[in-house]
Order: sequence, then structure tokens, then C-alpha cells
Amino acid sequence: MSAVERQLDDLQAEIEEEVPADITISDVTYEGPELVVYTRDPKEFASDGDLVRRLASKLRKRITVRPDPDVLSHPREAEEQVRDIIPEEAGVTDLDFHADTGEVVIEAQKPGMVIGRHGSTLREITRAVGWTPEVVRTPPIESSTVSNVRNFLKQERDERRDILERIGRQIHREEMSDDEWVRITTLGCCREVGRASFIVSTPETRILVDCGDKPGAEGEVPYLQVPEALGAGANTIDAVVLTHAHLDHSALIPLLFKYGYDGPIYCTEPTRDLMGLLTLDYLDVAAKEGRNPPYGSEMVREAIKHCIPIEYGDVTDIAPDVKLTMHNAGHILGSAVSHFHIGDGLYNVAFSGDIHYDDTRLFNGAVNEFPRVETLVMESTYGGRNDYQTDQEDSERKLKEVINETYERDGKVVIPAFAVGRSQEIMLVLEEAMRKGDIPEMPVHLDGMIWEATAIHTTYPEYLRDDLRDRIFHEDANPFLAEQFNHIDGGEEERQDVADGDPCIVLSTSGMVTGGPIMSWLRHFGPDPNNRMVFVGYQAQGTLGRRIQNGWDEVPMSGDRGSRSGTLTLEMDVKTVDGFSGHADRQGLENFVRTMNPRPEKVLCVHGDESSVQDFSSALYHEFNMRTFAPKNLETFRFK
Amino acid sequence: MSAVERQLDDLQAEIEEEVPADITISDVTYEGPELVVYTRDPKEFASDGDLVRRLASKLRKRITVRPDPDVLSHPREAEEQVRDIIPEEAGVTDLDFHADTGEVVIEAQKPGMVIGRHGSTLREITRAVGWTPEVVRTPPIESSTVSNVRNFLKQERDERRDILERIGRQIHREEMSDDEWVRITTLGCCREVGRASFIVSTPETRILVDCGDKPGAEGEVPYLQVPEALGAGANTIDAVVLTHAHLDHSALIPLLFKYGYDGPIYCTEPTRDLMGLLTLDYLDVAAKEGRNPPYGSEMVREAIKHCIPIEYGDVTDIAPDVKLTMHNAGHILGSAVSHFHIGDGLYNVAFSGDIHYDDTRLFNGAVNEFPRVETLVMESTYGGRNDYQTDQEDSERKLKEVINETYERDGKVVIPAFAVGRSQEIMLVLEEAMRKGDIPEMPVHLDGMIWEATAIHTTYPEYLRDDLRDRIFHEDANPFLAEQFNHIDGGEEERQDVADGDPCIVLSTSGMVTGGPIMSWLRHFGPDPNNRMVFVGYQAQGTLGRRIQNGWDEVPMSGDRGSRSGTLTLEMDVKTVDGFSGHADRQGLENFVRTMNPRPEKVLCVHGDESSVQDFSSALYHEFNMRTFAPKNLETFRFK
Repeated sequence: MSAVERQLDDLQAEIEEEVPADITISDVTYEGPELVVYTRDPKEFASDGDLVRRLASKLRKRITVRPDPDVLSHPREAEEQVRDIIPEEAGVTDLDFHADTGEVVIEAQKPGMVIGRHGSTLREITRAVGWTPEVVRTPPIESSTVSNVRNFLKQERDERRDILERIGRQIHREEMSDDEWVRITTLGCCREVGRASFIVSTPETRILVDCGDKPGAEGEVPYLQVPEALGAGANTIDAVVLTHAHLDHSALIPLLFKYGYDGPIYCTEPTRDLMGLLTLDYLDVAAKEGRNPPYGSEMVREAIKHCIPIEYGDVTDIAPDVKLTMHNAGHILGSAVSHFHIGDGLYNVAFSGDIHYDDTRLFNGAVNEFPRVETLVMESTYGGRNDYQTDQEDSERKLKEVINETYERDGKVVIPAFAVGRSQEIMLVLEEAMRKGDIPEMPVHLDGMIWEATAIHTTYPEYLRDDLRDRIFHEDANPFLAEQFNHIDGGEEERQDVADGDPCIVLSTSGMVTGGPIMSWLRHFGPDPNNRMVFVGYQAQGTLGRRIQNGWDEVPMSGDRGSRSGTLTLEMDVKTVDGFSGHADRQGLENFVRTMNPRPEKVLCVHGDESSVQDFSSALYHEFNMRTFAPKNLETFRFK
Repeated sequence: MSAVERQLDDLQAEIEEEVPADITISDVTYEGPELVVYTRDPKEFASDGDLVRRLASKLRKRITVRPDPDVLSHPREAEEQVRDIIPEEAGVTDLDFHADTGEVVIEAQKPGMVIGRHGSTLREITRAVGWTPEVVRTPPIESSTVSNVRNFLKQERDERRDILERIGRQIHREEMSDDEWVRITTLGCCREVGRASFIVSTPETRILVDCGDKPGAEGEVPYLQVPEALGAGANTIDAVVLTHAHLDHSALIPLLFKYGYDGPIYCTEPTRDLMGLLTLDYLDVAAKEGRNPPYGSEMVREAIKHCIPIEYGDVTDIAPDVKLTMHNAGHILGSAVSHFHIGDGLYNVAFSGDIHYDDTRLFNGAVNEFPRVETLVMESTYGGRNDYQTDQEDSERKLKEVINETYERDGKVVIPAFAVGRSQEIMLVLEEAMRKGDIPEMPVHLDGMIWEATAIHTTYPEYLRDDLRDRIFHEDANPFLAEQFNHIDGGEEERQDVADGDPCIVLSTSGMVTGGPIMSWLRHFGPDPNNRMVFVGYQAQGTLGRRIQNGWDEVPMSGDRGSRSGTLTLEMDVKTVDGFSGHADRQGLENFVRTMNPRPEKVLCVHGDESSVQDFSSALYHEFNMRTFAPKNLETFRFK
């Protein structure tokens, strides 16, 4: 009998001790970090509303209770009863019964009404039919990404359960080493922006945190091939943790599966969906530009199949000696400050990932309260000594001015923006400005994946700022559905119409002008001095965006999408309106550390240009008297 | 055709261009770092005394010329001619003809007379017989180690040539990476003394520097199993460099071969022989103490078979992007400061290994002049703020006082000493003191491997201090052969006789009282308050030597060698006479850095107790304004 089997037997005995004598436990098993308890008496189990919580607290595990398949009622009968119990206003759009696990997945427009107060409706369902209900939200704006991911996971349900069981045993394996140490190895994004990747290692466990590409620097990927990364094989990694879906953090995650990795990816649910969207687009853009992407779309599916969703604030066992907790980072949908508790009180490391410290229209500011934290790995994108941005109110005023000026001279505004994050923030600004009459009503065209990304945002309102969530669901005043927003889905023809038409605003990807439909808008709008290009986000070194921002007006154009290649002379005005960045500025970064509770002993300043990380590292040292570092890529720091 | 074959073809063409038209080059091949040139006209080749030097300088390679086997004269005839050419006083003791390579190995008491002025006699031999002579010294004191190593290498000659050819191709392989970086990973001896081990890595190459055990801390070995060490397989290491033969640097070298390593070990010739001696003894001691050593003696033979001897000052290609140069370190016989030139002018790292800065009786002081060096990895054994030793003259006076006092009260002196290094130093002191009448003539008993280690010293006088070398060979006044020195080769019976006899001095291993015959001397001498134990070398934390030095007088004794076990009460006086250490003291360490030319930008302070490395690191920073570090084990520093 293996150590894990002994452990499960012990757990079953403990559970049997805790539950009333009339409840039979037929099996106990691990699926990923969760302990799944099978019972022959699901109805009785559900009648004690506090039982699962008590068990979870006693065993210090995340617990799911499922009916033994033998005792299930027939889906046809069950469906009728379930629909009877759920209030009509919940807007159930789909019911899906899985006899293998006794789960019924309920898709509804208002999941809260399916759950009921403190889960009371869910328990009522189980008491009535025995099945274990699981609730997902029907996307308020149809999202092909969300429905593709859900359908794919449904179709791969059996294999996924096998994967989760294997991972579960891996997580709960016995610790082998008497040694104690905690290390971080830097594989990318040190003294540079892009290709974020780190290894957190202990004698037991090796965790990869992020695995991105470097925008504007083709082929520059994290140092995955060195021995301390994947040099001894992709499965020398126990787990991958993804802080958020931007490609400079996620693009190479699917590559890990091509290299043979078959372990878990821990991230929030929106990060999983956005990663799917962005990595597939990454492949698409590469193909269109005649580049050979490092992996195919089947690897994106593998990655999604191996995702284990984490909710903000949940403490999750991801290895025998590592617990992961993710917290809102305020940067993009699903972005997470990731906290690792290592050993039994041995050490704590927090990775900020990319953060926004102050509240924005979309998100609450980043969380910086932890039970304990000794070392912080801190983004420093705007860590330079002069990287102060105007506050958002000023930025909005400036943006509106630019739009008004351009409108007055009959010009058009094009805003390159990341599909995910800044686009939605700008949409909210524009919607309000038009509603309040600060700028004229005019069409706002959304090109690239912005529309789809917006749909994903509305699927996960729990991850948005409180009052925005309320507007989307409670007041039926979803700002993203305002009529001036037009989804460009007619290709070049539609773009030509827009270019030939009246003043308007275009939001288009890619955000750093490294490819995608923005290249087409450059051609359409670039030659007219009445038009304006407005940068609202960070432009990395080496990107065309950074060059245009710095004054380049001769832009080499490749002949993609059938257009002629050659050089394009930009006549339109170029403006930068900062303050909309998804990143904290220097002040925000300092505030994050200043108000962090508890204050860390050591800070590794990463994810910034060389001068930014060095400025920021030196400032933190002088202001807060902590040990600070500006690591290079390929270094290893030992903390214990 | 492989890249290496193309390279060899090009080299052959270059050589053919340089040599006179009447000399035919039949083949060119690599053996380890050397370029071997086979010629059908060895006699003509040898007639131009400067030709090999010109070729070496043109091709920037170490060059060996050998006759094509087809053109060789018969050994019987050749032997007669060779003996005729070599002056009788050279004392030839053996001639060994190897028809496969056309080499004749000449063992002689005075190798210099076989070589002749600037190699004239060697060239005369080749001009006469065509064979390529190679000269080795007949050990002036018979050494079983030297003769075993030589016989073993003779017996394994064919396999060794295969190994060298394989390594040669490996060294001269084409560089694959466009990337540039230089890193050092610490695997041991950081904030501790013992288990020295580092990895120097570039995108092309990974080199292991030293691989020792930790005296007094059983089972504590370098972190070889982490991915960046051997985690991806022992042959992810390209080369091993051994700075010197002490077990805290060499003990686990044979283990690498058990793990499957089959690459080269670069070290000086005396280090190779001493490593053989010390690691075999390490296995012997382990067996006697009932421990299970991590490898068997056949792995020591593998290690010796893979040694590539390096002479001080020779620049040697050890990888496509790494050149190694070893320099005298003044610490023990063959000990080397090891300098790595990486890339074509990219970066230079020097490892001090263990050093003695000032001249001692045995050795010249450590070399600290280099063409370039940016980073120094520096031993800090006596780096603590108070680690100043009296100078050697004072130390010698003190030692003589202790001996005289003990003699006067009819007591005996026992000195625990490393077999290699300190023993010979003390022997030189005692021999002179008796010769000059500073202490009474009395027997000096040498126990453990001291006699054998001394024999090895006399085999390699080139590695000893100039005037000592002269005494050994030119004046026939070899101090190591003085009649008071007695080799204890009669075991316990002889020890009992010594214990029962008149005043005397015993030099015995192990130097830190962690096992070996010193345990027996403790039992014999310990209970008599008239006796003295004198420590003359560093005692590592956790060793019995350190404890006794600190005042322990109840010594637990195991019952090895048939004696009863239990506790031994030490009544004899314990003295420490420092100043004989093979290590520089704090002053010497500082002087090494102060006078180093050029001065390095960065210093990693290693190989010292935690407080010593931190004191020393901080002192270097404040005195010389350099970047200094006191690394932990398992860290990786990147320099480029």
C-alpha cells in the first residue's frame, strides 16, 4: 500500500468519525488539490449545512462531496426536480448531468440565485436528487472562448479526471528530504520587460512561475533549457503557476506540454480562458506573419486541460511542502498576486506579478496583506525615478481633450491597446464621457480580440470592481453593451469603410504595435495629419510602438494581408496619455511596498528595464531599509 | 565530415605549410587538449629545434609530434642508441617503448640530464631513433602510489588513448550558442569549511571545480543532485578541475564516475597521485570504521585514468570557450590557483583554491598575477577578524619550546597532521632544529600515510620551493631522508614499543583527529600528563580535533582495531601552535587580494566558517571598494 493510499484510508476513518452514523462513506480520493468524498447517502450529507465546512477545517483540506454513482436518481427525473427548485429568475440556460461523478453542471445567467444564501439552494438540490450541483455563469455577452473552453473540458472530462487524480497523488506524496532550503531562480524578465519566468525550488518541489515571451524581441524566450529549468526534463517541474494571461507571462505555457510536461497549471478561471484566447491569437499572428510558432494549437488545448482554477483567497496545497494563495492584483482580469507558503512555517514568498496599486474603473487595487511574507518578487515596470504618471482623472481629461481636438478637425483617433485590460478600461471611460456629453457621440470600433476579451470580462464579474459588477448585473446597465461600441468583424472591407467615414475612435490590438489589425489602421489613418494615434499603455523596448512613441515616422510595412510592403510615412499626430496603464506607476509601486503587511525582509525587483529595476531597488533599500536586489536572468537566490 | 574533422584537416594543411617540404605529415589528431602530429619523418622534424614552438605559437595549441608507427626502428636497436645518448649520471632506471604511439618513456633519477639544455638531448634521441621520448622522474624515496599510478596508466594505455581522443573532440567541438553568459553555482563550502564544489557555466560548457567531503560531518557532501549540478546526468558536466588533493576538495571525485561521468579531470600531476593516495585511504578508513563508503576503489582508478595533468603556467583549452591555467597556490604539493579565461576575452574567473600567501619551507607563496581577472572566488578559512597567526619563525620557536619542555619532563609529543603538506613542513622544521641543536636528537615517528606522502613530494621537486629542490637533488642532502625519521610500519606492536620507550615525537594522521592512527596515539599518550598534543593545522567545526583543542578531555573511543571502547580521559597537555597552517592567515588573505594584479572587480568569499566569510567579505569591501559576496550554498551568480 502506497503512502498516499494509507493517507486516504486514514482520512476516510477520520471522516467516518465525524459524520453521523447513518451516512456511509464509500470512497475517498484526491482530485488535484481537492479531497473528494463519495457517499451512499448524499441527501443525508447535504441536510447538515455545516458538515462540509467542519470536515474541511478538521482535515485542513478542500473537500467536495459526491454521491456514489449507484445511488443516483435518473437524470430525467432529477432534471425536473432541479428546475423546480431553482427560481425562474436565475435564468438557467443549460443542465448537464455527469453520471460518472454524480455532478450536475448548471449554467445560469444569475448563478447567485442557483446557489442561494450560504449555498442553501444547492443543498436543497442535493437533498432532493442526490446529485452534486456545480454552477457556472452564462456569459452575458456571447463569448466563443468561454463556450469553447467549457465544451472542450466537458468532452475531455474522463481524461481530465485521470489527470486530476494523478496530480492529487503527486501533491499529497510523502516528503522525502530532511534538508530545508528555499530558492528562486530567474529565467526571464530580469532587467528587462518580457519573458517572465521563475523557478521556486525546495528539496521536495520545483514550481515554475509564469512562462512568457518577450514582445518585440522575436525568439527571446525564458531560459528554459538550462539544467535548473527544464534541462533535466519538463517533468522535473511539479507545478506551473500563472499570475495572469498576458503573453509576456503566458505565451510559452503551452510549449511546456510540447516538451512533455503533464502537470498542473494553477491560475484563476478568467486567466485560463484569457490564456486560451491570447495564445491561440499568438499562433494566428505568427502564422500570418510567416513565422513558425514554437507549438501548435493542440498544445493550447493540453494547457487548458491541465489548468486547476484557483479563487482569490483560497489556500491550496500544490505540493507536499507548498501552499499557494492567489489575490487580486488589479492589473487585468484574473491577475493574481501569488503567495507561496513553504514548509510548515519555514518561509513565505509573494510574487506580485503585474499589479495596479490604486483602484481603476475595472478593478480594485492590488492586495498586499498576507499572514506572513519574507521575500517579495516585485514588478518594476514603472520603477524608474521619473516614472510618475498623472492620476487617472487627469489622464481621462487629457484623453477627452485629444478626442475633442481630433473630432473638431474632422480626424479619427486610433488607440493601440492590449485586448485584455486596457481596452475595457478605455471603453468604460469613453462610454461615460459620451453619456455625460464630455465628448461627442461617435462610433467606437473595437478591432482584434477586444470584443471577445470584453465578453470574457462580463462572464467573470466577481473579478471586477464592486460597483462595476453591480452595474453589469443588478442594474441591467452593462456599459460594455452601449450602442456606440462596434465590433469590427468585417475585415479589411469594414476597416476601409471606417477609414472613409466620419470621425470615430478605433481601439485595436496589438497594444505595442507589434502586429495584428493595428498595422492595418496605421496604413489607413497614418498618412492623414488630422488623425491621432494615442498610446495608453506601456511600450516595451524594441517594439514598433516604442519607436513610434519616440518619434519614428518612417514605418517599415510588411506586405501581410495582401497590402503592398514598403515604408509608410506617418503624418498623423502621436500622443501618449499615461495614467491608464494596467501597471502601478513608481508611486503605486512604492505604496504597495510601504503599506504591505507584513513588510518583507527582501525584495527582488524584476520586470522592468535595467535602469528602472536598479532605481527602484535602490529606492526601496534607502526608504525602507530592506535588502533589495536587481537580479539578472539566470541567477539563483537562496533564502533559507 | 564533422566539424572537428574539418578543423583537423585545416590544421594539417596549416602545418604542412609551415614545415619544410621534405617532412611528411601523415595524420593530425586531438588527444585531450593536445594536438598530436604524426610524421613519417620524425628525425627531420626533430632537427629544427624551434619548429614545434613555432607551430604551437602559430596554431595556438599544445603540440606533440610522434613518428608514424610505420617508420619506427625496432625497440631493441633503439634502446641501445638511446642509452648511448643519455649521460650515465642521469640514472636511467627504466625504458618503455610504446609502438602504438612511437613514444619511449624514460624513467630516470635526474630527468634534467635526459632532457638536456632546452630539450637538446631529447631532440638528439629523436634524430637518432625516430621515437618520441617522454621523461619521468624515478622517485628518490620509493613511493608505492607513484609506481602504482604509473603501472596502472601503462596497463590502461589503449583505453586512455581512446578517452583522450574522445575528450579532444569534445574540447574542440563547434560552439553552438549565440548567447553569452558566465555563471558560478555554489554546491558546497559556502559559509562552512568542507565539501568544496562549484559549477562554472556558460551557454556551451559546464565545469565542476572540486568535489570534496566535509570532515567531521559524515554524509555531508556537495549538493550534486540538484538539477544545476548533476541532476540532468553526470555527463552534463564537460570537465572537472581539481585545485588540490585534500579530501575536502577531492573525496567525491571518484563518485562522479560511479554516477556515469566519463570526462576529464584537470589537475597537476602531484595532485593526481595524492588524490589516488588520499581517496584510497578515505575508503580504507571508512571500511575500518564500519561505514559504507559511497564508491569503491575501482572508481578511484577510473578517476586516475581520466586525469589530464596540467603544469603550472600552461594555458590549456578545456572547452570550446574555456581556457584553464593553473598556478602555484603554496598550500600543498601540486595545489593550484585555477584561472579560467572564458570566451574570446569575454570574462575571467580565478579560484584561489586553498592558498598560502607567504613562502613556507616547502613552497613558494601563492601566485596572484594574471593577464586579466574580473571575479575571484577566494578561500576564507582564516578570514575572521582575529585570525592572525604568528609568523613562522615565532611558530617554530614555540614548537621547539614545547618539544624541549616535554623532553625535559621525559614526555612525548604527538602532532596530528595532514599527511600531505603540514607533515612535510614540520619534518623540515624538526630536521633543521636537530641538525642545529635547537632541540635534542630524538626519533620522529611518522604514522599513517605521512611517509608515503613524503615520497610523493620528492618525486615532484619542481613543485617545491627553489632552495628545497636544490637541497634534494643537487646537494644530495635530502632532508626527508634524515636518519631520525622513522616510518611506523609495524602497526600496534610498534606503537606500543614507541609508547613504552624514550622521549620522541610522533607525527600522525588524521590531521583533525577524525580517525586513523592518531586515535591509537591518543590512547597511548593521552593518559600521561607529561605528554603533549600539539595542533599545528586548522581544526574544522565538528571534528574531534576542534573539540580537544577547545578543552574537551573526555574523549569517546570506538573499539576499532581490537581496542576496548569507552571514554578516554586526556591527561596530557594540549597546545596549539599556529603559523604552520597551509592556509594564509587573515593578513595573508588580505595581502593576496591587495597585491593581486589586476585587482578583481568582484570577490566571492567562500571556504570559511560563517563569521569568517562575512568578516572577510566586509573587510575587502571596505578596504578595497570591490563588490564582495559571502554566498550561501546552492546559489548562482551571473557575471556577464
